[in-house]
Formats: sequence, C-alpha cells, structure tokens
Amino acid sequence: MDDDRIPPHPDPRDVTLQQILEALVDPVRRSIVTQLRAASADIKCGSFDLPVSKSTATHHFRVLREAGLIRQYYQGTARMNALRRDEFDAAFPGLLDAIVAAERVPA
Amino acid sequence: MDDDRIPPHPDPRDVTLQQILEALVDPVRRSIVTQLRAASADIKCGSFDLPVSKSTATHHFRVLREAGLIRQYYQGTARMNALRRDEFDAAFPGLLDAIVAAERVPA
Repeated sequence: MDDDRIPPHPDPRDVTLQQILEALVDPVRRSIVTQLRAASADIKCGSFDLPVSKSTATHHFRVLREAGLIRQYYQGTARMNALRRDEFDAAFPGLLDAIVAAERVPA
Repeated sequence: MDDDRIPPHPDPRDVTLQQILEALVDPVRRSIVTQLRAASADIKCGSFDLPVSKSTATHHFRVLREAGLIRQYYQGTARMNALRRDEFDAAFPGLLDAIVAAERVPA
C-alpha cells in the first residue's frame, strides 16, 4: 500500500451512510461491487465488464474508494481493485449483503 | 384503502433496487423511514420532525410511497403514513434493517 500512485484510503468506520448510498445509487458502481464480490480474485481496472468509457470508470472507482468500499493498489503497471468486504461489513453490518442480494431480485 | 384521495401503492416486489436507493439516498426521506420505524403507531404527515416545508415533505412522502416503502391512508382529514415493513422485508430481506442500523453508526 506504500505506493504514492494511489491516494490514501479512508477507514470505512469514518465513512457516512450518506456517502455510501451516494456511491451505491449509481448502477455502474453497484456493478463494480457486484463483480468484485462474485470474483475469486481482485480485478484490474481494465478487466471489468462496464458500459462506460475508461475515464468514466476511473471516476467510479474513485467514488467507491473514497466511500471505503474498495481498495486500489498496483501490481506492476496494472491498477488492481479489491472489495474491502470484511472491513466494510464490520462498520456496516449486513448492508453490502442486503444490497447485493437485492440486486438479484427480478424487477 | 378504498379512498380515491390516495393514489395506488406498488407491490414492493415490483420496485427495483435502483428506485429504492434513489428514495433512500435522500437524508430527509431516510429520516421519515427511521421515525416510522421507531414509532409505535402510524404517523400523520404533519407530525414528523422534518427540516423542510410542508410541500417538500409531501414530495418526499410520494417518493417513499412510489418506492413501496410507506403506505398512506386517510384517518378523517389526516393523511397517515405507515412503514410497509413486513412487505418490504419480504421483497428485500435485510435491506431496511441494515440501512436503519447504519444510520446510527457515528460518523
């Protein structure tokens, strides 16, 4: 994590529910979280299945990082993304599970 | 419920997560839900503790009603509000509990 290409990450306990809901109200950002949660490993920025441009995706990753939901780090030149599931669940019990489960409910 | 002063209410199972998050991303609307959840009885529109005008509050009640979160009905001339907790929990298990619990987390 000692890499000055990546800005600092907040402690999820310092993030407000308001900030989390503003992050997760966007369907592209929920898709990033859902893809990370379903994956068996961290995912590099370019490897998500997203309907937006690279620069727009970069913005969405930043919002999720600042909301305490993902951790970003470099592996060589690739920026990787990890869901901060345990830390987030400890700060907001049940919230991520409930939202991911609700995403699957047929409309 | 057979009162033409109140528009129809959706079945919470027909509401999307997107619509629910758009409803609950607003702090005034979360406050309405939280007050209803903490109350021992339904609450009339004029009796909530809200930092907005009556007409703005009316808008917020409508958004919550259309998201399947509250049921509105008349008691005489008073428009009452009830949290559709059981129906909503059946459609979106754990979601309301997690959000209300998260609201209490100190920022």
